[in-house]
Amino acid sequence: MGIVENRIKDLGYELPAPVVPVANYVPAVLASTAGLVYTSGHVARKSDGAFIVGKLGADISVEDGYDAAKLCALDLIGTLKATIGELDRVTRIVKLLCMVNSTPDFGKHPLVANGASDFIVEVFGEKGSHSRSAIGVVDLPGGACIEIELIAEVTG
Amino acid sequence: MGIVENRIKDLGYELPAPVVPVANYVPAVLASTAGLVYTSGHVARKSDGAFIVGKLGADISVEDGYDAAKLCALDLIGTLKATIGELDRVTRIVKLLCMVNSTPDFGKHPLVANGASDFIVEVFGEKGSHSRSAIGVVDLPGGACIEIELIAEVTG
Amino acid sequence: MGIVENRIKDLGYELPAPVVPVANYVPAVLASTAGLVYTSGHVARKSDGAFIVGKLGADISVEDGYDAAKLCALDLIGTLKATIGELDRVTRIVKLLCMVNSTPDFGKHPLVANGASDFIVEVFGEKGSHSRSAIGVVDLPGGACIEIELIAEVTG
Repeated sequence: MGIVENRIKDLGYELPAPVVPVANYVPAVLASTAGLVYTSGHVARKSDGAFIVGKLGADISVEDGYDAAKLCALDLIGTLKATIGELDRVTRIVKLLCMVNSTPDFGKHPLVANGASDFIVEVFGEKGSHSRSAIGVVDLPGGACIEIELIAEVTG
Repeated sequence: MGIVENRIKDLGYELPAPVVPVANYVPAVLASTAGLVYTSGHVARKSDGAFIVGKLGADISVEDGYDAAKLCALDLIGTLKATIGELDRVTRIVKLLCMVNSTPDFGKHPLVANGASDFIVEVFGEKGSHSRSAIGVVDLPGGACIEIELIAEVTG
Repeated sequence: MGIVENRIKDLGYELPAPVVPVANYVPAVLASTAGLVYTSGHVARKSDGAFIVGKLGADISVEDGYDAAKLCALDLIGTLKATIGELDRVTRIVKLLCMVNSTPDFGKHPLVANGASDFIVEVFGEKGSHSRSAIGVVDLPGGACIEIELIAEVTG
């Protein structure tokens, strides 16, 4: 088990098996010349696979949104591991696009997205220092409260 | 005519001429060091160029949205061809970002996005196996029902 | 001072200091193998740092949105400069994703996004010829009227 995976274990988390899309696409693609992995958008899920639903600003709190974003990040890391085999191949988490299911006057999207950003930095340290966009979207698949996609730079 | 273009013809489709933006941007850019083509967002259009408009969840059906996404993918492939000259240079369709014009409680964005994903895989085969995000946006240019952007890896 | 920075000065603008995120992320990341810089989403700000707020289609005009997008582009260029040191290293502005805070029936997102596209082309000339997506989002951090992220190809 590599350094990054050990840190995830030390933090008390277990890498989930990657979610298999039910349609004609895959969880992530490695563009090898560029050395970049592009993940699909991952919606927040509970450990039993059920979507964490709700619209920020209406029926789910910022705190619960933060926790959902963190679980989303854990899923994204699980997908990274399945795509490149060994998380220590990650040289940098390049970017997160955090799409928050929100009302038209929510405004606090960054506080929700922080759940993912904080966890990524906790797990990857300096290599986890990423760029990020946080936005409000009118709705998400199945009414999920957040969907995140990730770009990572890898080596080897 | 290359393998991919022949397959498009065999499927009964004709590659459209790329849509020329009416502002200060271009349909796609090849980042050559990375070997990646980034397209502009393409909104769904009929063969006469008119936008396919409507908001999913209100005034356009999932089936019509699926068909619109497929036409959008055809336009994106036309843009790829115009950008790199020969579609057989595509080594992988890396990612689709499918932005669906929807109501706040639509939820079925993946079923619409499948119109693009299914077509991309039909045309490119294994090289068409892509990552994808499907989200709901509050509105799109001209009230279009869907806008899609694509990243492709190319060689040569 | 390089060619690009001189042009910005000649146009009558001054590069702002990059906005330092107040959370666990950074303004931009250079993925060096790919030679690509990915910026965080930048929301439109006045020179005093206050967000330019409002929802297009309701309480801010297309003209003011255009100007906000232009200021956003100026901020993005400031971030690019801080990330790569010298703007003449930019070989191509690859892509803009322009997310416009809008009502469900605004439709004129490209007219707002043009504020950024026009300025980027004015500053970078042919190297500024970029791909672009313009979409409507239901809300943005702090109620900002527009948020833009940028991908640039760099050398050296």
